[in-house]
Amino acid sequence: MILEIASVDIQSDKHAEFEVAIKRAVDTILVKAQGFISFELQHGIEKADRITLLIRWENLDDHMVAFRQSDQYTRWREIIEPYFASTPQVDHWRQIFTA
Amino acid sequence: MILEIASVDIQSDKHAEFEVAIKRAVDTILVKAQGFISFELQHGIEKADRITLLIRWENLDDHMVAFRQSDQYTRWREIIEPYFASTPQVDHWRQIFTA
Repeated sequence: MILEIASVDIQSDKHAEFEVAIKRAVDTILVKAQGFISFELQHGIEKADRITLLIRWENLDDHMVAFRQSDQYTRWREIIEPYFASTPQVDHWRQIFTA
Repeated sequence: MILEIASVDIQSDKHAEFEVAIKRAVDTILVKAQGFISFELQHGIEKADRITLLIRWENLDDHMVAFRQSDQYTRWREIIEPYFASTPQVDHWRQIFTA
């Protein structure tokens, strides 16, 4: 399992609309993607316009190849990108241990 | 519940030692902290020296007041800080929805 952490600023007056849009994109696109495990939308406390997505995938290629090169990814971006106020920062992480 | 996301670079040749040290610090200190819910250590894939901690707390004050102002926090930092190669970046997040 790998963890994608993606952060982006949302336009200040568009958070409620963004949340409706990404809920729709998750329910109709992301949950059906190959290797998708789970999704969290997190809203910044110190950085009030910033959101972070935590998305768990079976492996890196499920995200970077199968999803990113799919028509469904184009649709995913079309739904959520209009609310962005910065370029998303995306990194992948491998779990070492939990407690 | 709130999510603390903390990232820091670890000295390149010290990852194995760091993982032993933080495992000890989690088991002896963090899991006993007021409001502690869960901990994940994540290792960067693109950023090979970077690690991210995901720590869930009952509320913000459990981390920022009760833990940060405790002697146990001083001890926590003494155990893990010798391996740091950068200043940690710490932010807090509130969950909007999951899938």
